[in-house]
Amino acid sequence: MKYIEFDKSKKYDLILVGRVAVDLNPVDYYCPLNESTTFKRYLGGSPANIAVGLARLGKKCGFIARVSDDQFGTFVTDFFDNEGIDTSHIVRCKNGEKIGLTFTEIKSETESSIVMYRNEAADLKLDPADVDEDYIKQGAAVLISGTALAESPSREATLKAMLLAKKNNIPVIFVLDYRAYNWKSDDEISVYYSLAAANADMIIGSRVEYDFAERFEGLDGTDLASASYWQNKGAKIVIVTHGKEGSTAYTCDGQSFSIRPFPVKLLKSFGGGDGYTSAFLFSLFEGKEIIDCLEFGSASAAMLVASHACSQDMPNVAQVEAFIRKEKEEYGEMVARV
Amino acid sequence: MKYIEFDKSKKYDLILVGRVAVDLNPVDYYCPLNESTTFKRYLGGSPANIAVGLARLGKKCGFIARVSDDQFGTFVTDFFDNEGIDTSHIVRCKNGEKIGLTFTEIKSETESSIVMYRNEAADLKLDPADVDEDYIKQGAAVLISGTALAESPSREATLKAMLLAKKNNIPVIFVLDYRAYNWKSDDEISVYYSLAAANADMIIGSRVEYDFAERFEGLDGTDLASASYWQNKGAKIVIVTHGKEGSTAYTCDGQSFSIRPFPVKLLKSFGGGDGYTSAFLFSLFEGKEIIDCLEFGSASAAMLVASHACSQDMPNVAQVEAFIRKEKEEYGEMVARV
Amino acid sequence: MKYIEFDKSKKYDLILVGRVAVDLNPVDYYCPLNESTTFKRYLGGSPANIAVGLARLGKKCGFIARVSDDQFGTFVTDFFDNEGIDTSHIVRCKNGEKIGLTFTEIKSETESSIVMYRNEAADLKLDPADVDEDYIKQGAAVLISGTALAESPSREATLKAMLLAKKNNIPVIFVLDYRAYNWKSDDEISVYYSLAAANADMIIGSRVEYDFAERFEGLDGTDLASASYWQNKGAKIVIVTHGKEGSTAYTCDGQSFSIRPFPVKLLKSFGGGDGYTSAFLFSLFEGKEIIDCLEFGSASAAMLVASHACSQDMPNVAQVEAFIRKEKEEYGEMVARV
Amino acid sequence: MKYIEFDKSKKYDLILVGRVAVDLNPVDYYCPLNESTTFKRYLGGSPANIAVGLARLGKKCGFIARVSDDQFGTFVTDFFDNEGIDTSHIVRCKNGEKIGLTFTEIKSETESSIVMYRNEAADLKLDPADVDEDYIKQGAAVLISGTALAESPSREATLKAMLLAKKNNIPVIFVLDYRAYNWKSDDEISVYYSLAAANADMIIGSRVEYDFAERFEGLDGTDLASASYWQNKGAKIVIVTHGKEGSTAYTCDGQSFSIRPFPVKLLKSFGGGDGYTSAFLFSLFEGKEIIDCLEFGSASAAMLVASHACSQDMPNVAQVEAFIRKEKEEYGEMVARV
Repeated sequence: MKYIEFDKSKKYDLILVGRVAVDLNPVDYYCPLNESTTFKRYLGGSPANIAVGLARLGKKCGFIARVSDDQFGTFVTDFFDNEGIDTSHIVRCKNGEKIGLTFTEIKSETESSIVMYRNEAADLKLDPADVDEDYIKQGAAVLISGTALAESPSREATLKAMLLAKKNNIPVIFVLDYRAYNWKSDDEISVYYSLAAANADMIIGSRVEYDFAERFEGLDGTDLASASYWQNKGAKIVIVTHGKEGSTAYTCDGQSFSIRPFPVKLLKSFGGGDGYTSAFLFSLFEGKEIIDCLEFGSASAAMLVASHACSQDMPNVAQVEAFIRKEKEEYGEMVARV
Repeated sequence: MKYIEFDKSKKYDLILVGRVAVDLNPVDYYCPLNESTTFKRYLGGSPANIAVGLARLGKKCGFIARVSDDQFGTFVTDFFDNEGIDTSHIVRCKNGEKIGLTFTEIKSETESSIVMYRNEAADLKLDPADVDEDYIKQGAAVLISGTALAESPSREATLKAMLLAKKNNIPVIFVLDYRAYNWKSDDEISVYYSLAAANADMIIGSRVEYDFAERFEGLDGTDLASASYWQNKGAKIVIVTHGKEGSTAYTCDGQSFSIRPFPVKLLKSFGGGDGYTSAFLFSLFEGKEIIDCLEFGSASAAMLVASHACSQDMPNVAQVEAFIRKEKEEYGEMVARV
Repeated sequence: MKYIEFDKSKKYDLILVGRVAVDLNPVDYYCPLNESTTFKRYLGGSPANIAVGLARLGKKCGFIARVSDDQFGTFVTDFFDNEGIDTSHIVRCKNGEKIGLTFTEIKSETESSIVMYRNEAADLKLDPADVDEDYIKQGAAVLISGTALAESPSREATLKAMLLAKKNNIPVIFVLDYRAYNWKSDDEISVYYSLAAANADMIIGSRVEYDFAERFEGLDGTDLASASYWQNKGAKIVIVTHGKEGSTAYTCDGQSFSIRPFPVKLLKSFGGGDGYTSAFLFSLFEGKEIIDCLEFGSASAAMLVASHACSQDMPNVAQVEAFIRKEKEEYGEMVARV
Repeated sequence: MKYIEFDKSKKYDLILVGRVAVDLNPVDYYCPLNESTTFKRYLGGSPANIAVGLARLGKKCGFIARVSDDQFGTFVTDFFDNEGIDTSHIVRCKNGEKIGLTFTEIKSETESSIVMYRNEAADLKLDPADVDEDYIKQGAAVLISGTALAESPSREATLKAMLLAKKNNIPVIFVLDYRAYNWKSDDEISVYYSLAAANADMIIGSRVEYDFAERFEGLDGTDLASASYWQNKGAKIVIVTHGKEGSTAYTCDGQSFSIRPFPVKLLKSFGGGDGYTSAFLFSLFEGKEIIDCLEFGSASAAMLVASHACSQDMPNVAQVEAFIRKEKEEYGEMVARV
């Protein structure tokens, strides 16, 4: 069943709004970050990774963002260009703002943390004036990221994109994507997550992220309560992820669909989420059944936690299909399905 | 007909959120401000004036605000105490922020302007942590002011109050109250006015203020379009004011009611709006018909533009009634009704 | 003896750098400020008052400052123009900064305090680019005020004016003028007061102000230690004021000269200092002996503490002379001399 | 001859004030930075490099600085500890400030540039309260870095350290170390460089850096004019560097001593300066003749431009001596002497 209609005649399958950043992953990992001596740099940032994931899967993406006016700004723009992502609405900052950096600490297969450089980060300087209604109208859907709500003026630029999408009957996908940087208080997070979720057609996030979004709503903290609350506000699909416990998609017809991770040898414990989201959205845009969307998403996630990079290692359709085939051969048809 | 239900069992008829300020009106007026040499100081700020208006009319108000930790903070708190307005949730700023000032320029009966001191103004430091759900729950209604949305953290504090009122089924009254200070861009105004209006049970503002609220909505700029758009989002009463052309209240049953100003000798061209709002709300809380609410509001407005102060000259019920009686004797029963 | 040479051929006797502000003095005084209802507005700010004082005494002053781009900016500029003070280097702020305000509380003849509006004050936005060497060179002396060092960019603008005066062999007069606003820490005050005092030809301030300037110098807190320390750095005249105990000027030839206040019926306990400084400087520019400079300064101070305003009530030469004559007739020739 | 006396009884040969940072040098160099994929991280920051250089040469250093409260803060503190540099006055920032980063672009042996992350950098948060007079007094000399003057509160902390050193008769070494980040205007640079240089016993910088320091001094732009101007203010040794043209030390007895670079195969064109300064200072502390100090400095500089790192590759005494011996054998005794 189709829960959300996407207008196939639009120039872009998806227009994403939010951060493009740089990841610096240690080459000498499985130790504390202060002992790592060498780092590989990759394009990063949740919406940027999702865009690359979708591009690899054959979808056409546009991106609205601010990046630094330096060699890293050049690197990420060139990377997008090479992937076929439209960069016509990527603006260079002019006041010395730097692109966000994420140094990752990979202590073991399952323990990791990050050190983020996000003070005066270029992405948070996205200005409402950068958000162009004519461009928004070229998208079959608009994706906004919670981190883009953390600070002005990116906050208002993102809300403007959301309001303009609504005005033009374009579905809004809200990726909660919470990062504990830049926010001034839990109340601030809850205010903006609540206002954005109330305007979204699809929401995707972890249990912890929904809890942030619902601090002023008086819910009981269950996934079912979250799903029915936001569906009552207009959401058609509400996905709650639970890490290695798997995830569930709740649809506005009262159904729910669950998936669990494919078994895989982990290299690191992060990076799967953006693969999951991009592969889920690809399948949704293709018109697949929700359970198939979830399986495709879960497969991409599994492939990425086994890789060193995130963006750079995003798989194409054939690779995801091959992975699923191999896993099913090894573990059985229902390996990921609950 | 009752468009909005107010719970009479609550401790307060209304809890207001927003600015308390100080007005400095010239004693030697009808000249440019730079030539005025002497000023009288009054309590000011739109929501503060409305609270005083309601208190004079016998209603019980609570107020959530930040004021300066100096003699002016003492002055406004004492003034509220004397009027019977609850000041238990008025917080003193601790980092040298000063209470907002408004110097008024009264060039003639009909020409005026203002010079506002609102840099690091105390009211804009209202913090989400100052907004207490238990207090909100004691109000039969909550009033938020557009100017309180102009800057963080007052912006988030105000949105939190709105969300908590909604959670507790308390009607939200949104007074657009636009001031061209502190806002960074027109887009910023439109984003927040739009999000707040979509959550309001009653909205009151001028045509210009609605235009700000609707820049991302694609409406046609008519009052009727505004009314039906916001009613579709949940508003029950939408009032659009047009200065000396009068004003119209649109109700969610498709009716509209218009009023025009009572003829009066003006002293100045400002200060009527807060009288209007307080007297309208008083009548609404009393359960009067909309047209009678409007007449009562219009009478208070007329009395205030004929006075030097705003807050200090707010009339009580007997005074408004006497004014209306006298006007009707002089100009006929339909003097203000359209 | 002449301790400092002033080049009489220069266009201006003095170029002042620092704040122009507005004072609001209560008309209904001798009560706490929160009970005062009516205020008279005057031009204020220590260097602005000194400029007016000098202009009334017949000296030609230039002024480098930033003021607000509103009616108060017009008021102070017009006031200067009327006094014959050059306003060609008074710049209007363009980002909504407001001119500083000082509300005075006059509790009794001897008790007073102030509430200052100095957040984003126009004067503290004075930019180094506003300081023009060609203009500085037209002054026979340059006066800088300690309060102008409280925040960037006014801090750097003031230090630039000081350095350019030194480069051009123009005497620098440093008025310590400490106000407990805007400074971040005592260390910050001490750093800048120390660096400025080390470059001054004449320093004037209270004991408390010297103590701030000397926290990193290891002195013993006596006036004599202050005088010899700063004279060793290059100062020719060091004046330490002690309120109603009088004041002493220390000259670089090892002499000292003391004065005490003229007996007078006080209206308020502030406002004398700028009269003192302007009348002292006038006399110094005229080539008078130090003790006569002090007497003239003390007389002006006495006249101002008996008046409601500061700037507006600055006396001319005939008025000061008449005041001294009258006082001497009543109290004897040595009334103020120690 | 000894131009500056260093008290050998002090606990530390030198106390340095300023930045500790992290360098990220590309492993795949000789291409534009946007094409480099892998980076090695080193401790960096001019005064930090100088401290490491001196420690390797056997001198005892103390350091006053702020670093980030994260794994990079741990890395640099551990590195200092391992080198024997005292870290008792290295403070962790508590408001999310990050340690400064320098990504280097090595396009060829002679072309390089940098991308610096210095927004809200930890080192610029050094607070005057972090500067402890008792610690300062334990140093035989105090070194301040020009970059530490770029922003408050580091600016005031550095000036406080300078004033306290002067108060305690401890020589001040001012390393101009100009970086085009954080400064608001050229005037701001000139104000602070001028005030610091006027208080220094030794100054070291490039011609361009002296030009910044002297914009308000009216000099003619020659090294000789710089030297005599600052010597007149109190400097004993003034060193002007000219990159591959060599450098000259001007002493307060009117002599000058010149050195030129040792011939060496460059890996990169930066990183030599801090080696030069540390080796020069080591020799000066040892009581060597100025020309020998310069030769030792130049040798260390040559060794570092041939290395990938800066701090990590600082040589010890035996290594510098061996390098000089080898160079002289190959190129003659006067290889570096002019």
